[in-house]
Amino acid sequence: MSKKITTIGEIMMRLTTPGHERFVQADQYQVSFGGAEANVAISLAQFGMSTSHVTAFPQNDLGQKAKAYLKQMAVNCDFVYDHEGRMGLYFLENGSMQRASRIIYDRFNSSFSNFDGKDIRWDEVFDDVDWFHWTGITPAISQNAADMLLKAVQVAHEKGVKISGDINYRRNLWQYGKEPLEIMPELIRYCDVIVAGSSDFENCMDIQVNDWVDACFQAKKDFPKLKYITKTKRQSISASHNQLKGILWNGSEVLKSKTYEITHIVDRVGGGDAFIAGLIYGLLHFEDQEALDFATAASVLKHSIPGDANLVTVEEVLNLVQEKNVGKLLR
Amino acid sequence: MSKKITTIGEIMMRLTTPGHERFVQADQYQVSFGGAEANVAISLAQFGMSTSHVTAFPQNDLGQKAKAYLKQMAVNCDFVYDHEGRMGLYFLENGSMQRASRIIYDRFNSSFSNFDGKDIRWDEVFDDVDWFHWTGITPAISQNAADMLLKAVQVAHEKGVKISGDINYRRNLWQYGKEPLEIMPELIRYCDVIVAGSSDFENCMDIQVNDWVDACFQAKKDFPKLKYITKTKRQSISASHNQLKGILWNGSEVLKSKTYEITHIVDRVGGGDAFIAGLIYGLLHFEDQEALDFATAASVLKHSIPGDANLVTVEEVLNLVQEKNVGKLLR
Amino acid sequence: MSKKITTIGEIMMRLTTPGHERFVQADQYQVSFGGAEANVAISLAQFGMSTSHVTAFPQNDLGQKAKAYLKQMAVNCDFVYDHEGRMGLYFLENGSMQRASRIIYDRFNSSFSNFDGKDIRWDEVFDDVDWFHWTGITPAISQNAADMLLKAVQVAHEKGVKISGDINYRRNLWQYGKEPLEIMPELIRYCDVIVAGSSDFENCMDIQVNDWVDACFQAKKDFPKLKYITKTKRQSISASHNQLKGILWNGSEVLKSKTYEITHIVDRVGGGDAFIAGLIYGLLHFEDQEALDFATAASVLKHSIPGDANLVTVEEVLNLVQEKNVGKLLR
Amino acid sequence: MSKKITTIGEIMMRLTTPGHERFVQADQYQVSFGGAEANVAISLAQFGMSTSHVTAFPQNDLGQKAKAYLKQMAVNCDFVYDHEGRMGLYFLENGSMQRASRIIYDRFNSSFSNFDGKDIRWDEVFDDVDWFHWTGITPAISQNAADMLLKAVQVAHEKGVKISGDINYRRNLWQYGKEPLEIMPELIRYCDVIVAGSSDFENCMDIQVNDWVDACFQAKKDFPKLKYITKTKRQSISASHNQLKGILWNGSEVLKSKTYEITHIVDRVGGGDAFIAGLIYGLLHFEDQEALDFATAASVLKHSIPGDANLVTVEEVLNLVQEKNVGKLLR
Amino acid sequence: MSKKITTIGEIMMRLTTPGHERFVQADQYQVSFGGAEANVAISLAQFGMSTSHVTAFPQNDLGQKAKAYLKQMAVNCDFVYDHEGRMGLYFLENGSMQRASRIIYDRFNSSFSNFDGKDIRWDEVFDDVDWFHWTGITPAISQNAADMLLKAVQVAHEKGVKISGDINYRRNLWQYGKEPLEIMPELIRYCDVIVAGSSDFENCMDIQVNDWVDACFQAKKDFPKLKYITKTKRQSISASHNQLKGILWNGSEVLKSKTYEITHIVDRVGGGDAFIAGLIYGLLHFEDQEALDFATAASVLKHSIPGDANLVTVEEVLNLVQEKNVGKLLR
Amino acid sequence: MSKKITTIGEIMMRLTTPGHERFVQADQYQVSFGGAEANVAISLAQFGMSTSHVTAFPQNDLGQKAKAYLKQMAVNCDFVYDHEGRMGLYFLENGSMQRASRIIYDRFNSSFSNFDGKDIRWDEVFDDVDWFHWTGITPAISQNAADMLLKAVQVAHEKGVKISGDINYRRNLWQYGKEPLEIMPELIRYCDVIVAGSSDFENCMDIQVNDWVDACFQAKKDFPKLKYITKTKRQSISASHNQLKGILWNGSEVLKSKTYEITHIVDRVGGGDAFIAGLIYGLLHFEDQEALDFATAASVLKHSIPGDANLVTVEEVLNLVQEKNVGKLLR
Repeated sequence: MSKKITTIGEIMMRLTTPGHERFVQADQYQVSFGGAEANVAISLAQFGMSTSHVTAFPQNDLGQKAKAYLKQMAVNCDFVYDHEGRMGLYFLENGSMQRASRIIYDRFNSSFSNFDGKDIRWDEVFDDVDWFHWTGITPAISQNAADMLLKAVQVAHEKGVKISGDINYRRNLWQYGKEPLEIMPELIRYCDVIVAGSSDFENCMDIQVNDWVDACFQAKKDFPKLKYITKTKRQSISASHNQLKGILWNGSEVLKSKTYEITHIVDRVGGGDAFIAGLIYGLLHFEDQEALDFATAASVLKHSIPGDANLVTVEEVLNLVQEKNVGKLLR
Repeated sequence: MSKKITTIGEIMMRLTTPGHERFVQADQYQVSFGGAEANVAISLAQFGMSTSHVTAFPQNDLGQKAKAYLKQMAVNCDFVYDHEGRMGLYFLENGSMQRASRIIYDRFNSSFSNFDGKDIRWDEVFDDVDWFHWTGITPAISQNAADMLLKAVQVAHEKGVKISGDINYRRNLWQYGKEPLEIMPELIRYCDVIVAGSSDFENCMDIQVNDWVDACFQAKKDFPKLKYITKTKRQSISASHNQLKGILWNGSEVLKSKTYEITHIVDRVGGGDAFIAGLIYGLLHFEDQEALDFATAASVLKHSIPGDANLVTVEEVLNLVQEKNVGKLLR
Repeated sequence: MSKKITTIGEIMMRLTTPGHERFVQADQYQVSFGGAEANVAISLAQFGMSTSHVTAFPQNDLGQKAKAYLKQMAVNCDFVYDHEGRMGLYFLENGSMQRASRIIYDRFNSSFSNFDGKDIRWDEVFDDVDWFHWTGITPAISQNAADMLLKAVQVAHEKGVKISGDINYRRNLWQYGKEPLEIMPELIRYCDVIVAGSSDFENCMDIQVNDWVDACFQAKKDFPKLKYITKTKRQSISASHNQLKGILWNGSEVLKSKTYEITHIVDRVGGGDAFIAGLIYGLLHFEDQEALDFATAASVLKHSIPGDANLVTVEEVLNLVQEKNVGKLLR
Repeated sequence: MSKKITTIGEIMMRLTTPGHERFVQADQYQVSFGGAEANVAISLAQFGMSTSHVTAFPQNDLGQKAKAYLKQMAVNCDFVYDHEGRMGLYFLENGSMQRASRIIYDRFNSSFSNFDGKDIRWDEVFDDVDWFHWTGITPAISQNAADMLLKAVQVAHEKGVKISGDINYRRNLWQYGKEPLEIMPELIRYCDVIVAGSSDFENCMDIQVNDWVDACFQAKKDFPKLKYITKTKRQSISASHNQLKGILWNGSEVLKSKTYEITHIVDRVGGGDAFIAGLIYGLLHFEDQEALDFATAASVLKHSIPGDANLVTVEEVLNLVQEKNVGKLLR
Repeated sequence: MSKKITTIGEIMMRLTTPGHERFVQADQYQVSFGGAEANVAISLAQFGMSTSHVTAFPQNDLGQKAKAYLKQMAVNCDFVYDHEGRMGLYFLENGSMQRASRIIYDRFNSSFSNFDGKDIRWDEVFDDVDWFHWTGITPAISQNAADMLLKAVQVAHEKGVKISGDINYRRNLWQYGKEPLEIMPELIRYCDVIVAGSSDFENCMDIQVNDWVDACFQAKKDFPKLKYITKTKRQSISASHNQLKGILWNGSEVLKSKTYEITHIVDRVGGGDAFIAGLIYGLLHFEDQEALDFATAASVLKHSIPGDANLVTVEEVLNLVQEKNVGKLLR
Repeated sequence: MSKKITTIGEIMMRLTTPGHERFVQADQYQVSFGGAEANVAISLAQFGMSTSHVTAFPQNDLGQKAKAYLKQMAVNCDFVYDHEGRMGLYFLENGSMQRASRIIYDRFNSSFSNFDGKDIRWDEVFDDVDWFHWTGITPAISQNAADMLLKAVQVAHEKGVKISGDINYRRNLWQYGKEPLEIMPELIRYCDVIVAGSSDFENCMDIQVNDWVDACFQAKKDFPKLKYITKTKRQSISASHNQLKGILWNGSEVLKSKTYEITHIVDRVGGGDAFIAGLIYGLLHFEDQEALDFATAASVLKHSIPGDANLVTVEEVLNLVQEKNVGKLLR
C-alpha cells in the first residue's frame, strides 16, 4: 500500500507571462497554481503516494478552480476549507539568460492567512499518515497560520508521524509583528528532517554558520529530534543554465549527489519543492545516498516542466539517476 | 482645437477568461485594464479629444503596464502617480445566452484606495480643461478617495470646468464606514450633468422615485446647478442579446433615442461608460437630441468590441446614427 | 448529506477544431474529454452531489490525463481501472448557422470496450449509493461492456439503488453481433427512469410508436418498474439556434417545461446529458414538474459552455427556472 | 471525369485580426490568402472539379507560402509564375452587429500587377478546359493585367471554353489611367455568363439601369454571346446578420432562389465568390433553377467558414438546398 | 529537369503538446502529419525535386486533411488512395534537457495497414521515376503492407529505378505474425542503398555485427546489388543537445562527415528522414563525400524546425556545409 | 530632471512567425513594430529619459496602431505625422541553431519615404533637447528622407544638441539614385558620436580600413567634430548562441567591454539599437568605460526579450554590469 503524506500551506494562483515576454508586454497570462507545500504533495502524488493537503480558499469560483487543480493533480481535498479572504496571487515573468526571472507577490489578506483552522479535527487529518511536511512560509504569513501550524505539528508528533520542515526564511514575509526566532524553534523542535541553508540557521534557529556541517551538528544539539538536514546547492550561470547538487547530513556524515548541468531551463520555480518531495520519497523507500540522488534527480527534471509542480514518475527519476534514456526519444 | 477632458478614478487590471469559458475551465486570462472613468477618457480620446486621467498605481511592473495601457489609448498621464498598495483586479467571465456574465472584484487595498492626492496641484490638473468627469465608485472606495474627489470637484467648479458625475450606486462598495448620503450630495452639488437611475436617486440623493422625470425635477430643486440628467434603459433578453435606449432630461423635457437591438454581444462591460463618453462629446458639439443619439449609438457600438473601452471614431458613431454603412464590409 | 450517484461508461478524448474552423483547416485541436454517462456524473458533481464513475482507461499518459480530468471535475475515481486497449477518441467540428456540426468517432478497440469488469467488487461500487445511471451506448459497444453493465444493473437493483437509463439508440454502434432487442430489454427491466424517444421505443423495447404517451403507458406494462419516461424536444433552426423543451411522463400524466430559445449556441454536445443530470437532481430534491423544469433549464445552460460537461451550479439553474438574472452582468 | 475549370487573378495574403478585435487592438494576425478568382477555383476544387489557377507571386518565401496554400486547396499550380514585385496584402477587421467589417488593401506594385504573362503558352492553359472564369478586378489593376486577361479570354473563346466574368466594378481600383469602358466591353464580349449589378452595367457596359431585367435584355443586345446574367441580393441587417437571395436571368426569364437568413456570420468575405463557384458548378451539372439554388446555398454556407474560401462539398450544399440536416449534429 | 522520386508508406496524424508541456498538462495539441517515407518525399520536394507518395487514407475529413498536407508540401498525390480503416495517429510530448521526448503510437487498424494496393498500376507509379525510397516500417505493419511493398520494389527494380531502404527495425511493430527475417532480406535484395545500424543488420539481415564496416562488406556479399550503406551517429547529451555525424560506406571505404553540435533542439523527430532525403539528393547530384556532407547538414537543420518535415532549401543546406551565414540574421 | 532625446526615422510593422516556425509554416504572425531609431528612443524611455520620435505614418488604422505602440512605450508623438503612403512592413522568421534568421522587407513607397517634412518646425523639435540620434537607414530610403534628415541635423547642431549617427550601411537600400558618399559625409560632419564598422568607413566615409583604430583617427581628421566612434563585435556561433563585446574609441584610446556569452537567444533584432541607446545613456551619465560597459550589458539583455525594443531598466543593466542577480529568481 502506498505511503500517506500530508502537507499544509497556502496555494496561490500563478499568473505567468507567455514565453519570455516581460510584464509590460504580456496581454495574456497562463493561469496555474502553486505553493511550496502543495507542490510537494503534488509531486509525491505523481510518485504514486497517497497525499492530502490542508488549506483554505475563498468561497468563489477562483477557490473552486484552485481546488479542482489540486484534485486534478491527485491530491486529496478532504481538508480543504472555504474561508473569508482573497485568493492569494503571484505574477511570474520568466527570465532568460542574463535576465533574471521575477515574481510579484499579491498574497496579503488571503483566505489562508485569515484561517485559524479552529474547527479542523487534526486527529482525522493525521489518521494513518506516514509523513507530514510544512515550510517556514506558513508561520511567516500570519499569527493565525503560525498557530494552526503549531497545532498541526504537535498532533502529528503525538501520532508518531514523521515530520519535515523546509525552513525557507524570506525576509519580506514576517510582517505581522513576530520575529522568526519567536516562532520557528518551537516548530523545528518536532522535526525529523529540515531543509536549511545558512540564512535559515541564522534567522530561524539562532545558529551562526561558519561551516554548514558544523551548523548541522549544532542544530542536532539544539533540536535533538532532528535526523536529517538537507539543502541544494544551485549555481545560477544564467536564468537558462543552472548547476544543481543535493547535500544531505544524516546525523553523522555529509552525503553529496553528483552535480547536474541544467542547460535549457523551462521553469525553475518549484525546483526546491521537487527536491524535498524526492527526498521524502527517497527516505521512505531507499538508503540515504539513494534518497539524496533520487531527490536531486527529481529536482533536475522539474526544471524541464512548465508550472510549479514536478509532474514526473518514479521511473523517470530513477532513469535519470541511472543515466538511462536521458534526453532520448522514447517510442 | 480639440476639447480637453479630465477624469479621475481607479483603474483595475481585468483578467478575462477566453471565449465563453467559465472560470473553472480557464487556463489563461486575457489581460487588459478598465475603470469606469478611464473608460470614458479613452473613448473621448478616440473621438479626438485631449484627455487626461488622474489616478495612482503601485510602483511595480503591473503599475507600469497599466500606465502604458493608458498612454497607448492616447490618454495623458501627467497626473498618474505611484502609490503604495496593490493593483486592483477584476476577473471577468463572459456569459452567453441565458448564462449571465460574472465579475469577481479583488480591489481592496489598492494604490488608488490608499491615495489621498495631498500633493496634487489641482490648479494644474484643471488648467484649460473643458470638462471633468467622475463617478460614484470613487467616493465609495475609501475616505481618502472621497476626500480627494471632493477637492477635485471643488477646484474644477472654481475654474469653471463643466462637471459630470455618473452616480453608479453599488451596494457592495461603501465599506469604509460612511453612507452614500453623507458624501454624495456634496459632490453632486457641483455637477452640470449626472447619470442617475432610480436607485441612484434614492441612495445617493435621498429622492424617492415614483417617476423618473419627476425625480429629475426634484433633483433640480435640490441641486440647482444640474442641467442634464441621463440614463440608459437596457433590456437583457439574454447575455447575447440586449436592447438599449438612451434617455436625457434637459431641465425642461425628456428626450429619448431610438431603441437599438444589440443581437450578438461581444463584450458588454463598459457600455454605460461609452454612453456617457458619447454624451460628453455630444453636449460639447451638438444639440441635445443629437447628443443623446450620438451617446446611445456610441454605447451600442461598444458592445461589439472586446475590452472595457469603446474604440470607435466619431465618424463611426455618426454613421450609425445616420444608419449609414451599418454592418457592411467597408473596403 | 449530499446524495451519492454512480455512473458507468466509456470516456473518450475529444479533439475539437478551434472556433468555427473545419477539419480541413484546423492546425490545432482543443483537448477535452466526454462520455454520455461521465457527463452526467460531472454535472451532478457541480450540483454538489457525491458522484463516482466506473470506467477503464489505457495504462498510458492519455489514460492518466483522462483520469485527471474526472478528478478535476470532482468525480470519484475509485472504480476507474487501467485496461489494455486504446483511448477512445472523437473529433468534433462545431457547425454554425446552416452548417451542421460533425463528429468523427474513433473508438473501436478502446480499453473500455475490452474491459469485462470481472474483478470489480460491485457491492462496494454501490455502497450507500442513491442513484445509478447508465446509457444505451455501453451495451452497444461490445459484449464485454454489455455483460458488465447487466451485472452492474442487477447489483444496483438488489441494493435498492434507483436506476436510470438513457436508451440513446445509435444505429452505427451495435457492431459486435448482437441486436439491441437481445440486450436492452433485460437492462430496462431494472430501471426506474428512462430517457426514450420513438426510435428508442422501437429499436430497444420493441414498442411501436404512434403516440409517445401511448408508448409510455405500453412501456409501463412491459417494464413494470418504470416510474418515469422522459425526453427532450429539440428544434434545430440552425446550428446556432435551437429551441428546447423537456417532457416527462410520470406514470399518470405528461408534464412539459416551457420552450427555451437557445439563440447563440456555444457547444451543443452534452445537452441531453445535462438534461438527464438535471432530472436526476430534480427527482431527488423536487416535485415532478419542478424536476422537469430544473432539468430543462440545466440543459439550456449547457449550450452556453464549451466542452461536453455542464459546469453550472444548482443556484444558476434555479435562477434560470425563476427567470432571475438571466443574461445579466453579475458583479 | 470531373470538369476542368481555369481561373486567373491576383491572390493576396490576408491578415485578419483575431475574433472581433479592432486593428488598434490586434497583436497578432491570422494569415491566409484570398483573391476573388482563386476563391472560385478553390470552391470548385472542393466540389471535386479539376481546377487550375493562373497567377504570379514574388520569388520569396511569402510567394512560396501562397503557392502552398493553393496546392493545399487542391488547385493545380502549373501556371503559377514567379515575378518581380511584392506580395499583395489585405488587412481585415471583422465587424460585429452594427459595427462594419473593414478591409485595408495594400496591393500596389504586386507581382501580379507587374506581370504581363508574355511567356504563357495560353494554348496549354486552356487545353481540355471546360470553363474559364475571370473578374473585373484583374483589368482594373494594371495595363499589364488587362492585356494578359484579354489574351486569355480570346484564346479561351477560340478553344470553345465557356467563359464567365464577375464584373465587380470597384471605383478605388482603376488607377493606371484607363477607364472601365475602354477595357471591359471588349472582355465581356466573349462571356457566356456574367455577374452584374446596376453599378456594373453602368460603369462597365454603359447601360443605364432603371430595371435590372431590362438591363439584362439590353446587355444581350450589346453582347450577343451572353446567355446568363446573375447577381445576389444581400440585405445587411448587421455585420452578424444578413439576408441573401440569388437571382439569375437566363435570356428569357428571371429566376430567384429562396431568401436565406444568415444569422450568426462567421466570415462574409468571399460570399460572392462562393455564389459564382456554385453557379458554375450548377450550370455544368443541373437545370437553371437548380443551378441558382445550388449557388445560393453554397454562398450561404460560406458565411459559416473562416477565410475567403468556401470549403464545403457538393453533398453539403445539396443538403441545404433540400433542407436536410440543417444545423444538426452529424455523428 | 528535376529528378523524380517516389516513396511509399503510412502517414500518421501527429498530435503534439504545446511547448514543453507534458501529456497530462496539455489542453491542446498541434496537429500535423508525419511518416518516415513521406518525410523524405517532402524534404526532397523542398529541394526542388519532383516527388510522389503512395499511401492510403480513410475516406473522411481527416484523410482529406492529410492529403491536403501532402499537397501543400508539394508532393504529388496521384497515387494516394481512400481505404477503409482509421487515420493512424501518434501523440508527441517534446522533452527538454534530461527529460526524454515521448511518443504514444495509435496506429493499429489504419487505412494503410489494411490496404493491399491490388489495384495500383505500378507501371504508372514508376514511370520516369529516378529513385524509389521505402523503410522497414511498412513491412512491419501488416501482411498487406509487406506484400504491396514487395510488389513495388520488384516493379521499380524492373524499370531500372534506383532503390533505397531505411531498415529502421522497431521491435514493437512486427505484430502480425511474421519475423523480420522472413520478409526483409527479399526487400533488401533490390536495394542500391540502405540505412542500417547494428540492430538492423542483426534483426533484418541476419548479419552479426562486431564492426559496422565489416558488416557492410558482409552485406555486400549477401546482397550484391548494394552500393551504399549509411547511418548517422547521434550522441544524446540531452533532449536539448545532441551531436550528430553522418557515416557512408560506399563499397570500398567509409566516409565520415564532420560532427555537428545541435545545441538548442526545436524538434528532433524526422532527423533521420532528413538525412536520407539529403543523401538521396546528394547521390543524385554530387560525389560521395559531398553527398554525405549534404545529408548530414540537412539533418542538422531539421532539428531547428517544428514538425516531422525538413523544410529547407538546397541553398540553405549548402550554406551550412560551407559554413556560410550560419546562424546569422539574413536581411 | 531627465534628459531629453530626439530620434527620427521610419517605423515598420513587424510580422513575426510564431516560435521557430518557418515562413511556409506560419498561419499567424505576431504583430509589433520596429525601426532602428525608434528602438533607441524606446530603450531610452525605459531608462527614464524623456524621448520624442519624428516620423510619418499612413492615415489609416495601421498608422494609428503604430502611433499607439510608440505612446505605449512612453515615446512622445508630438512630431509624428500622417502622410500619404503605405505602412512599411517587415516579415521576420526567427532562426535557431545553425539555421539563420531571415527578414523580408516590404518598405517601399512607405509614408516615411514619401515624407519631406517641409512643414516641420524644427526649432520646436529640438527645443531643450539634449541629444539627437539618427541612422544611415534614413538617408538611404529616399531623397525626401535624406533632405529632411540633413535639415534636422543642421538645426540640432545649431541648437547645440549632441548628435549621434549609426552609419549602418546596407547595400540593398540606396535605390533612389544617390550614392552614400554623396550624402553621408555631410551628415556625419555634424556628429559627436558615430557607430561605424569597416564597411561603414569605406562606403560612407571613403576611409579605407586596415585597422579599425587607425580608421577612427583618420575619421577624426576628416570629421573634426567627432568625439566617439563605437561598434560591437558579435560572434555568431549559431542563431541561438552569440558572443558580444562593445568597443569605444574616445579620441585618444580604444576601450573594450568584457565579452558576453549570449547562449539562448530569444530575439536578436535590435541588439545594435540597444547598444547605442545604452551608450547614449552612458555618455550622458557616466565615464567612458562605464558608458561602454552599460551599453554592452544593455545590448546583451535585449537578446532575452521578444520584439525590437529593449524593455529593461537602468537598474537591470547596472545589475548585469556588476554581475548582481544575474539569471536569478527575484521575488
